[in-house]
Amino acid sequence: MFRKASTHHFTEPLKLSSGKTLPGFTLAYETYGQLNQARDNAILLCHGLTATPHAAGKAEEGDSGDGWWDMAIGPGKVLDTERWFILCIGALGGFGGSSGPAAINPETERPYGLTFPVVTISDMVNSMKALTDVLAIKRYHCLIGGCMGGFQVLDWLARYPERVAASIIIGATARTSAHSLALWEVIRRAIALDPDFHGGDYYHREGPKAGISLATMFGMLIWMSREVMEEKFGLALAEGKQTPSYTLEPEFAVQKFLSSIEDTPKGPFDANGFIYLTKAMDYFDLERDHGTLKTAFSHVTGKTLLVSFDSDWRYPQKEVDKIRLALEANQAPVQHHCLHSAFGHGAFLYDFNNGLNNLIKNFLSPR
Amino acid sequence: MFRKASTHHFTEPLKLSSGKTLPGFTLAYETYGQLNQARDNAILLCHGLTATPHAAGKAEEGDSGDGWWDMAIGPGKVLDTERWFILCIGALGGFGGSSGPAAINPETERPYGLTFPVVTISDMVNSMKALTDVLAIKRYHCLIGGCMGGFQVLDWLARYPERVAASIIIGATARTSAHSLALWEVIRRAIALDPDFHGGDYYHREGPKAGISLATMFGMLIWMSREVMEEKFGLALAEGKQTPSYTLEPEFAVQKFLSSIEDTPKGPFDANGFIYLTKAMDYFDLERDHGTLKTAFSHVTGKTLLVSFDSDWRYPQKEVDKIRLALEANQAPVQHHCLHSAFGHGAFLYDFNNGLNNLIKNFLSPR
Repeated sequence: MFRKASTHHFTEPLKLSSGKTLPGFTLAYETYGQLNQARDNAILLCHGLTATPHAAGKAEEGDSGDGWWDMAIGPGKVLDTERWFILCIGALGGFGGSSGPAAINPETERPYGLTFPVVTISDMVNSMKALTDVLAIKRYHCLIGGCMGGFQVLDWLARYPERVAASIIIGATARTSAHSLALWEVIRRAIALDPDFHGGDYYHREGPKAGISLATMFGMLIWMSREVMEEKFGLALAEGKQTPSYTLEPEFAVQKFLSSIEDTPKGPFDANGFIYLTKAMDYFDLERDHGTLKTAFSHVTGKTLLVSFDSDWRYPQKEVDKIRLALEANQAPVQHHCLHSAFGHGAFLYDFNNGLNNLIKNFLSPR
Repeated sequence: MFRKASTHHFTEPLKLSSGKTLPGFTLAYETYGQLNQARDNAILLCHGLTATPHAAGKAEEGDSGDGWWDMAIGPGKVLDTERWFILCIGALGGFGGSSGPAAINPETERPYGLTFPVVTISDMVNSMKALTDVLAIKRYHCLIGGCMGGFQVLDWLARYPERVAASIIIGATARTSAHSLALWEVIRRAIALDPDFHGGDYYHREGPKAGISLATMFGMLIWMSREVMEEKFGLALAEGKQTPSYTLEPEFAVQKFLSSIEDTPKGPFDANGFIYLTKAMDYFDLERDHGTLKTAFSHVTGKTLLVSFDSDWRYPQKEVDKIRLALEANQAPVQHHCLHSAFGHGAFLYDFNNGLNNLIKNFLSPR
């Protein structure tokens, strides 16, 4: 079995960006492949906003759900588990088993809920660095991250560049944007509008299912491009109907598809965790942290692959290119490829085999 | 006083697209300027989704709110009320005073709420045509509409071309899109998630304010481009703060702006009315109604001005151009201009003086 799920509990306190301290914390992580004796074949995979450390394989035997990047990870795949030791750590504050709002507050013996402290991308990276030390990995062969995971890789480059031999950053900019700040705020409000949210104190009862569904639907409209929706659904009526019934019920195929989100099992998804992860993204701004991007990357020596997608208007090519310029200003080797895809920001998940696969393969094993 | 607000009640029944019948209906409308003796100087202005018949001037003396196209309508303005008689009719099913879910159902003597029948763009146009007959206007000098109003103008062209000497269609396509179907569905769900919605039966108490705010905020994310948000707000913290507080409360300027939507008076906006107007837009598809676009426009003789905006990804240039091609295939005079604007679909309201003004002026009064 190439997949292993683990947790590690840290008893030492973690100082947070906010000035607060987590008295201790747990990280859930999965690994694929074997760490070699030199401990220099480790690839740290940083998951995106909606994901968990479960990146590949089935979580349990007979489980129908594969990991979120199963197409990329495994024997002979782009992230070849016969060569590399892939590690994916659950983000602090999220919902993949690492400490977050669903964890039990030792002081009250009840789930933290919204009393969990706000964490930042840097706090997540500090927690990951602690686990990296536990695993005695001095330097990662490569860091890979898309979306929120890309933010984490950028933070590693800015603060722990000596731990990174190479990095791949997909669909991420060096700061969040006003539009993202607005989007997350609206999505958090959608969740909070659900009466079942109960101010985040719902772990002993039914959670805010309708609010989560609404938030997911919102997200779908932002992530799926107009073109993809048009191709996939067009104006077709649901269930092969030819003429509309003119009713208040959803009767178009795309609307039925959205409605089906309500009935989709949400797995480990947790509304509070999602709120904390989006909050962490809100505070991501390497310029605020380091003055300029050039300063942020002044100690980077490893090589970097930047990937953007032409349809990803939220993390556009032009903004991603600022990272390239800042790295080049520091003489760090960097390349930036903007791939064509109709899948927008989701392309690193939904359009992996359309160019991204080969880019990563060639970057990891140049000829 | 150049502005006049009126209502007209029709006692004859209106047959709807759904096969149902409205036993009678009321239209609220405003007029600006004077109808001449030949009754051939009338311009019908078809309002967009979020608007009402109140297009220009102040609704009441001392009122702070001007009409939604006040910049365009008035003496000496692009729609010069000293030359033309401008007419703006409240859409059936909406919230501007025309019959809709807030109207009293004569059978129950209570507001219709969600028992009001679903209406289509064609139903709206049929109601407008009835008022046009009452006003004894044989042929409009021009029809003008943006967004939902553009749909109405297109429907006039398809079904009553002999009543239209010229038309201006702004930011509208000949059919809705899968993305719009999805957007309206999600926005309707946001409203319905508010416990104060009460299944649309809220006229005797506080309505779904939070749901409407959420829907408006979400709309803002779709209508405002990433660039405009970035320019206007960037990552600035609210109230001139320099360092974040790392709290769950919104603390960025753009988030405070969104929160302020909650405190903005909604005027005549009615949640149920909004639901019905979006439903009407859902059913708009001239190809479903007429087979092909060419057939739809086979009797058009008047000239047409089409305007799209390069940042309006929801009603893109390429789709708008299909209308031009179909009109040209029928030898109808048509021009299509795609204007540059950062305001996306909202440009016809928020960027009027940036090219749209002159296009309309020259189209109405060619030299």
